[in-house]
Amino acid sequence: MKRTTYCGLVDKKYLDQEVTLKGWVQKRRDLGNLIFIDLRDREGIVQLVFSQEFDQASLEVAETLRTEYVLEVQGFVRARKDGAVNPNMKTGEIEVEVHQVKVLNQAKTTPFYIQDDINVSDELRLKYRYLDLRRPEMQKALMIRSKITQAVHRYLDENHFVDIETPYLTRSTPEGARDYLVPSRVYPGHFYALPQSPQLFKQLLMGAGFDRYYQIARCFRDEDLRGDRQPEFTQIDLEMSFMTAEEIQELTEGLLKAVMKAALGLEIKTPIKRISWNEAMARYGSDKPDLRFEMELKDLSQAVAGAGFKVFDQTLANGGQVKAIAVKGGADKYSRKQIEAKQDYIKRFGAKGLAWVKVTEDGFSGPIAKFFDEEHVAKIKAATDASAGDLLLFVADKAKVVADALGYLRVEIAKEQDLIDPNEFAFVWVVDWPLFEYSEEFERYIAAHHPFTMPNEEDVALLETDPHKAHAQSYDIVLNGYELGGGSIRIHQRSVQEKMFKALGFSEESAKEQFGWFMDALDYGFPPHGGLALGLDRFAMLLAKKDNIREVIAFPKNSKASEPLTNAPSTVAAKQLEELSLEVETNEE
Amino acid sequence: MKRTTYCGLVDKKYLDQEVTLKGWVQKRRDLGNLIFIDLRDREGIVQLVFSQEFDQASLEVAETLRTEYVLEVQGFVRARKDGAVNPNMKTGEIEVEVHQVKVLNQAKTTPFYIQDDINVSDELRLKYRYLDLRRPEMQKALMIRSKITQAVHRYLDENHFVDIETPYLTRSTPEGARDYLVPSRVYPGHFYALPQSPQLFKQLLMGAGFDRYYQIARCFRDEDLRGDRQPEFTQIDLEMSFMTAEEIQELTEGLLKAVMKAALGLEIKTPIKRISWNEAMARYGSDKPDLRFEMELKDLSQAVAGAGFKVFDQTLANGGQVKAIAVKGGADKYSRKQIEAKQDYIKRFGAKGLAWVKVTEDGFSGPIAKFFDEEHVAKIKAATDASAGDLLLFVADKAKVVADALGYLRVEIAKEQDLIDPNEFAFVWVVDWPLFEYSEEFERYIAAHHPFTMPNEEDVALLETDPHKAHAQSYDIVLNGYELGGGSIRIHQRSVQEKMFKALGFSEESAKEQFGWFMDALDYGFPPHGGLALGLDRFAMLLAKKDNIREVIAFPKNSKASEPLTNAPSTVAAKQLEELSLEVETNEE
Repeated sequence: MKRTTYCGLVDKKYLDQEVTLKGWVQKRRDLGNLIFIDLRDREGIVQLVFSQEFDQASLEVAETLRTEYVLEVQGFVRARKDGAVNPNMKTGEIEVEVHQVKVLNQAKTTPFYIQDDINVSDELRLKYRYLDLRRPEMQKALMIRSKITQAVHRYLDENHFVDIETPYLTRSTPEGARDYLVPSRVYPGHFYALPQSPQLFKQLLMGAGFDRYYQIARCFRDEDLRGDRQPEFTQIDLEMSFMTAEEIQELTEGLLKAVMKAALGLEIKTPIKRISWNEAMARYGSDKPDLRFEMELKDLSQAVAGAGFKVFDQTLANGGQVKAIAVKGGADKYSRKQIEAKQDYIKRFGAKGLAWVKVTEDGFSGPIAKFFDEEHVAKIKAATDASAGDLLLFVADKAKVVADALGYLRVEIAKEQDLIDPNEFAFVWVVDWPLFEYSEEFERYIAAHHPFTMPNEEDVALLETDPHKAHAQSYDIVLNGYELGGGSIRIHQRSVQEKMFKALGFSEESAKEQFGWFMDALDYGFPPHGGLALGLDRFAMLLAKKDNIREVIAFPKNSKASEPLTNAPSTVAAKQLEELSLEVETNEE
Repeated sequence: MKRTTYCGLVDKKYLDQEVTLKGWVQKRRDLGNLIFIDLRDREGIVQLVFSQEFDQASLEVAETLRTEYVLEVQGFVRARKDGAVNPNMKTGEIEVEVHQVKVLNQAKTTPFYIQDDINVSDELRLKYRYLDLRRPEMQKALMIRSKITQAVHRYLDENHFVDIETPYLTRSTPEGARDYLVPSRVYPGHFYALPQSPQLFKQLLMGAGFDRYYQIARCFRDEDLRGDRQPEFTQIDLEMSFMTAEEIQELTEGLLKAVMKAALGLEIKTPIKRISWNEAMARYGSDKPDLRFEMELKDLSQAVAGAGFKVFDQTLANGGQVKAIAVKGGADKYSRKQIEAKQDYIKRFGAKGLAWVKVTEDGFSGPIAKFFDEEHVAKIKAATDASAGDLLLFVADKAKVVADALGYLRVEIAKEQDLIDPNEFAFVWVVDWPLFEYSEEFERYIAAHHPFTMPNEEDVALLETDPHKAHAQSYDIVLNGYELGGGSIRIHQRSVQEKMFKALGFSEESAKEQFGWFMDALDYGFPPHGGLALGLDRFAMLLAKKDNIREVIAFPKNSKASEPLTNAPSTVAAKQLEELSLEVETNEE
């Protein structure tokens, strides 16, 4: 029999009609001559009633039913009695009097309950992922993800984008993160790489004249995993020709608007606020500021000058910064011990210490209060907009350390103090990035985004003189303190691209060896172009209000990059390795 | 300046308006004081006119322009003079009088012309793929592909499908084709495999209760390449719960209808014709029959019986078949020599020979005509529906050989005789497949589709007695003689799945070792379910009227599975192999 509708969608419009429903037994209440079953499907739950009055045979079947059995039932939809109405359920005003039931499949006892808020290990959830995904919150999370992709396809189609797939088996490029390699059988000792992004291919598609490209593309990075990293992740990937950075941002805003509407029914306001990278770092200590709350970083270089507090004075004399955040009403909320714990927290960002004062009616209190006379107290209060009862937290250090320490501290405290409205979605563009950033790991300047980012027009000359001073035609879109995506205008002229590689420390030869095939393309009438990529996993995570992208990926890897469900990766047959001319090195030396 | 519209879309509605256009120089005609430029973008070509009369500076720039330069121009749209109107172009009634031009990029001479019908090697086209893709036919082919995917997303969204991604880094399964492996860095000697299809994951999503899943999924097979094979290819992948095979077919027809409309503006008639696998093999000698023409295979076992032609008699006595196709009017079109060439053609299918007669007014002519008396001539003519002037081609052999030989010959001759309307799209469902097929390679029965296919209800018992007699709840959708896709109802009960593996020759242990993780899932309330996968590459190829899927893939591999553009696969740094605990075996023994 064909299903009439989903269990979760049976409502008063079906009153007194016969319906056919299919789903899973969520719960059974056996009152002897009356059995209630909650039948569940992806849309929700409906209450079935079995009774001799409706059908004796069905009642007898109902007696044998257990949780997670799969049923097909026919019955009449009836209004529940007044006392039995459940206003919290879509189907709470009705129930179904069953006169026919068929058990489509049985079920063993599941290793955990199929309900929200279970308390079981991630490993068990991943091993039985097909059961974990039955839980309503997981169903909802993946459906939000699907609504996002549907909105993306629709919006980009309407805006004349061409959906084009780029290869997953491609060439390894040493720049960037570690590649996943795929050995070739045809060419022993040769390897494909899984792409870290479709960057060069999408640029080539602009060279090919497609004008507007998009793809929802899987990307791969063999890196040590963090909370929101996965070996494979998904990008909403866009590229367009003949458009300025502002035009690309405007078009992206239309996309974000469409997604927020489709996925959550929310209207967001556009244009989205734009702030420069310099301003973001100065005011929020972060290139991905969370704008759902204030507590901005305030520069006190003027205000503390001459106060005579040595730590501050020396820092400023050495070209460093003194900054503070003001925790409104924080004086009573944080004990000395709690503040000292914060000191440990910020040490991970390289900060040597956290200075603090509590603002009183008369001035400051706390260990360093004595250093500030009335005049400096007034100046500091003015600069931080602080008043009695506030807690001021200072960091004095190199600009980068101050930004990181106070930037993260700001977020940490906002969470503790419940300053964040979980229902708010605060988008912001961070624009005008530096072209390069210094890498402590490599001890040299690396591309802040990637080597194909166009410098600001007036900064092209800096590539040959002071590359680290150059700013880029690049932009990140930030949502609630997460980098949702980023993009840039790209280099479309060979001469500029060559300068860029040189500035990155490539020899002419190595640039040619690795990227010659791409630079050759720039010789044949490459149009000006730019684009953007949005992280789909992160976007879905934020809209589903989860704190890990694993919660919006159907079959994610665990923190060791393995898949507990299938036990991948696994050993393979000797024949498979032989065909690939590979040997596994055993550590026996 | 923002572009007004695409070059190819400037028509009379812009008459006497100023427009801004961007595109590539397709052609330049220099008449000294008057220069015509054809400017091209993805939508087509527009004619620009440069003259002192409109702007001297622009005219001077125009003198320097070469093919494939990238321009931005401003000008006024004017009607062409009567004699200059080109009715074959969308923009053929207008031209643009340019008063401002900016060269956005220059171009070297391209290695081939950017136009249709070039005669250059595939290798060169792939090396300069970004130029090859500029050619209008390639632009059109990839845009048709994009229209297909857009229609798929739209239709499936409207039909409540959830778009869910499944892993690309997963577990190697020895059943099926050869896997591409991905070495794990974290677990030395362990490998992920790239999926050959999302089959088990999509079934698990049914177990997880998503009810309707789809994904446009990349699939990977490390096989020797044929004309329409690529190492990576794309599937439109569907799975749904609680539906019959017929309901799934009906839903798929809606999808095909939507795609044909969106991609080509064609209305196709539904329901699509269904024929059984047995009937397809009998009438067309193929499980993917091309229904755009007749020329069916006719069984002559009755008609030739007793005629006294030893070859036929012996074949029939040994349980074989005698079948023929009638080439209408073929008697004059095929010489003896040409018919003998066909004999060679069908030998590749194992046929020992091709018998033939020409039908004359009086009877038959040809080498074996003498064996047939008036009565048998009449019987054969009746059975083949042949009349004077036709050519009859006979194959006598085992059923499989007869089917293959005449099935392929039927298509070969139809092409030669121009019996195929290239504008026709003939869809057909081939249903009720055998569950198993005999593999000459493995010398045992293998799953005709895959081991998760549900037998017909009444055939489940055969799994334990005569598995090769069982038929499956499976269906292929065929378009113009190509298998466009296929699917089935799947096994949702562990006991049936276990029988299936046993019938396929798995020991209990090996079934458990390889698929235990999946069979465990069947224990927990798995719903009845089924699905289908359509080959997107092939679909796009057929709709774009190409004869190779490379023509509808932006960056395909060549016939040796390499990518001439980037030179993938490539050697990698020693450090990369070391991190993966791998050594390349050199052949020095």
